[in-house]
Amino acid sequence: MADDRLREEALDYHKFPKPGKMATKPTKPHSTAHELSLAYSPGVAYPCLEIEKDRDLAFSYTSKGNLVGVISNGTAVLGLGDIGTLASKPVMEGKALLFKSFADIDVFDIEVDRTEVEGFVEAVKAISSTFGGINLEDIKAPECFEIERRLKEELDIPVMHDDQHGTAIISGAALINGLDVVDKKIGEITVVISGAGASAISCARHYVRLGVERSRILMCDSKGLLTKSRGEKGELNQYKMEFAQDRPESSLTDSMRGADVFLGLSKGGIVDGEMVASMADRPLIFALANPDPEILPEEVRAARSDAVIATGRSDYPNQINNVLGFPYIFRGALDVRATSITENMKMAATMALARLAKETVPDDVVEAYDGVRIQYGPDYLIPKPFDARVLIWEASAVAEAAVNEGVARIDAESFNLKEYREELESRLGLTRSVMRSVINRAVSNPQRIVFSEGEDPTIIKAAAHCAREGICKPILLGQV
Amino acid sequence: MADDRLREEALDYHKFPKPGKMATKPTKPHSTAHELSLAYSPGVAYPCLEIEKDRDLAFSYTSKGNLVGVISNGTAVLGLGDIGTLASKPVMEGKALLFKSFADIDVFDIEVDRTEVEGFVEAVKAISSTFGGINLEDIKAPECFEIERRLKEELDIPVMHDDQHGTAIISGAALINGLDVVDKKIGEITVVISGAGASAISCARHYVRLGVERSRILMCDSKGLLTKSRGEKGELNQYKMEFAQDRPESSLTDSMRGADVFLGLSKGGIVDGEMVASMADRPLIFALANPDPEILPEEVRAARSDAVIATGRSDYPNQINNVLGFPYIFRGALDVRATSITENMKMAATMALARLAKETVPDDVVEAYDGVRIQYGPDYLIPKPFDARVLIWEASAVAEAAVNEGVARIDAESFNLKEYREELESRLGLTRSVMRSVINRAVSNPQRIVFSEGEDPTIIKAAAHCAREGICKPILLGQV
Repeated sequence: MADDRLREEALDYHKFPKPGKMATKPTKPHSTAHELSLAYSPGVAYPCLEIEKDRDLAFSYTSKGNLVGVISNGTAVLGLGDIGTLASKPVMEGKALLFKSFADIDVFDIEVDRTEVEGFVEAVKAISSTFGGINLEDIKAPECFEIERRLKEELDIPVMHDDQHGTAIISGAALINGLDVVDKKIGEITVVISGAGASAISCARHYVRLGVERSRILMCDSKGLLTKSRGEKGELNQYKMEFAQDRPESSLTDSMRGADVFLGLSKGGIVDGEMVASMADRPLIFALANPDPEILPEEVRAARSDAVIATGRSDYPNQINNVLGFPYIFRGALDVRATSITENMKMAATMALARLAKETVPDDVVEAYDGVRIQYGPDYLIPKPFDARVLIWEASAVAEAAVNEGVARIDAESFNLKEYREELESRLGLTRSVMRSVINRAVSNPQRIVFSEGEDPTIIKAAAHCAREGICKPILLGQV
Repeated sequence: MADDRLREEALDYHKFPKPGKMATKPTKPHSTAHELSLAYSPGVAYPCLEIEKDRDLAFSYTSKGNLVGVISNGTAVLGLGDIGTLASKPVMEGKALLFKSFADIDVFDIEVDRTEVEGFVEAVKAISSTFGGINLEDIKAPECFEIERRLKEELDIPVMHDDQHGTAIISGAALINGLDVVDKKIGEITVVISGAGASAISCARHYVRLGVERSRILMCDSKGLLTKSRGEKGELNQYKMEFAQDRPESSLTDSMRGADVFLGLSKGGIVDGEMVASMADRPLIFALANPDPEILPEEVRAARSDAVIATGRSDYPNQINNVLGFPYIFRGALDVRATSITENMKMAATMALARLAKETVPDDVVEAYDGVRIQYGPDYLIPKPFDARVLIWEASAVAEAAVNEGVARIDAESFNLKEYREELESRLGLTRSVMRSVINRAVSNPQRIVFSEGEDPTIIKAAAHCAREGICKPILLGQV
């Protein structure tokens, strides 16, 4: 789609019929005076008094237990950089929409006008009673590390900076299955990481936990490989130092020679076919810069035919999309009232995604993806974002890990994995699958539909939408 | 209703089928990959960039313009006192429900763990970009005065501490109409106020603006009349000093002798028939302590027959209920993007309520109140809480006042009062009136209904509810 058209469509989407993407709604009846006397004064005093006696009862009498704060200061928004607190709000509301539609989690998006660590941490701590969990979002490095560390340490609810951990968790699953497909051992591979920001550091740490040798992770920033000698020259902050190697200084190009895995978390187009050709046999190429990957899949293919490729994009196979992570990790954490999101829980998420990809893909998922057959292999390393099974597999794995580790606030004895999985199945309800099946039926046999008000901009837009989605063959009537 | 039954019903209401009273929902389509590409990456970048260029566009592309933060630290919750931040959450969610159901305003309830002024103000300022307006709630005096003053001064969105101003605005309307009914001039009356907290101070200030002589406001705290001599002894804080009179010290009982108006904002049962009998002819008695007023209407009647009475309760005439204020004041302020809520806007709200009470009451309001004829007079000084016209009258008056005063961010020329009133009419939609009319039809001719599962607790509860509301005559079947 042309950028101009996407721009216009996105602005209209956000503006009409009313501004924004999210609203609130009461979940309890409230049309009579009696009902309001329960929701508010005088009846509301009773749950207040119960919570005053036992704080945990806030999970029984308020929305806290299903409520996540998506909190940002707008210092590192998407690929846009530091656009400021207020300008980040559309992204945070978008995240709220994803949380709700993928995992039925309520979100308050909170924009915090504080860029320094102390001020940001203090503000979030002050309002943290409001929430059952906190998803930090789009906060720039290196502040994000200290902010997340402080909040995890000082709060008793799950806190996760998605930009750091989301990609690590999901690309970790792709790494495990990718190595399985190309038949390599994780302890023997060399991984080159292009980019040394928050996500890169977190991926490297997660890969080490998965079994990659720390000495075989070659992380490059814009000036080349992170090395001890660069560290001694003061070029690296403490987080980059964690992955500085005792090797001669070298470029990204040199580092990639003979490597088994390339993980790109940097910017579009910085890798060429020659660099890819210099890698080891059957390399994994995860080019995750968005929207333009470090190298396009067709360029990789032109350079060599044995590579296994993943990107951040939906129009190529193996999309590493954070939406495969955060909704379900928080779902699992909230449902067992976890006090934090631990490394074990993140690992459980990675493993659940990796295992699920090996399962037979059910028809409704196949239908959601144009009916093309999907099967575990080089072009299907991880589940698809619209696969409803991810909720059940991943959230239950995360919840189970929390219970086993003892960070859940519910009794280990009262946790029944089978029952919990059934509860998850019923949670999303029918709306999504019904809409999907209606659309699929239309798409499977698209009819000509005449739109008589063919000059009305809304009708033109609707017709274009139907044509693009293959729902019908629109015919517009009107003055020429 | 017995307290035990109310307690059980309120706890169940909050707990089942899922905890709490509020949730979030997407307002835009989000079932296809294309729709998600507008709601989130990559499309969402465009509204972000627009807002980065022009902050005001946040009102066009995000939910900010319809979003109020209901923010509390739980230090003065209802009649419960300082129950702590978390325990106040049911009340704040209740307020969110009222905002939504009466004025279609979205609310994030935020519980702030800061009791001192500076910490609270800093936390709220840090997150204020999130909101289009801030309703401070249940914060104890005297901190609430300074907190509200600071936030009003330092933020460019409307801020109102409802506990201070809500009662002032609504009782102000009752005062104006009450004086009209008893034919007294506002400049000549003596007002005794029992209570000297946040709401009392705010009422006194508002009454002065309405025309009451400051020297004729006799405010009493638990130790009696606020006087200059008590001030000199250091018994009064700066806010109480504002209404300290140059009179001899005296008791509430003595102060009430010969007074024209009694305003109770203190506690139940502290006024007796003798005190009421000592007041001037045709006194106004606003006994607003909740749930037990300073004196019950029947006790007033026993002492004298010429008094005009208002309480905070729904089971007596003239209920002074804050829900007649905050939803509509914020509705009007948000709709013209006001930068603050000014004294003129509060005054406009009072005047709109007073004027509306003199209008003929339409059938649907009469029906909502058991079909009893409602007419302006001693027993109907202000509109009923369920009167949908209040939205239109009050919000439009507040919006107009903001525009006239120049605190609105929209052009005065582009504000069309008639169009705005029509917009308000269409806002609430049909749900409430449809439910109300269905219930009314059932109530007008209640049928016997047999409930076959008469032992099921849910059915028993539903049957009891139907009986109480007069919806049907339930018959329960089951084992005896």
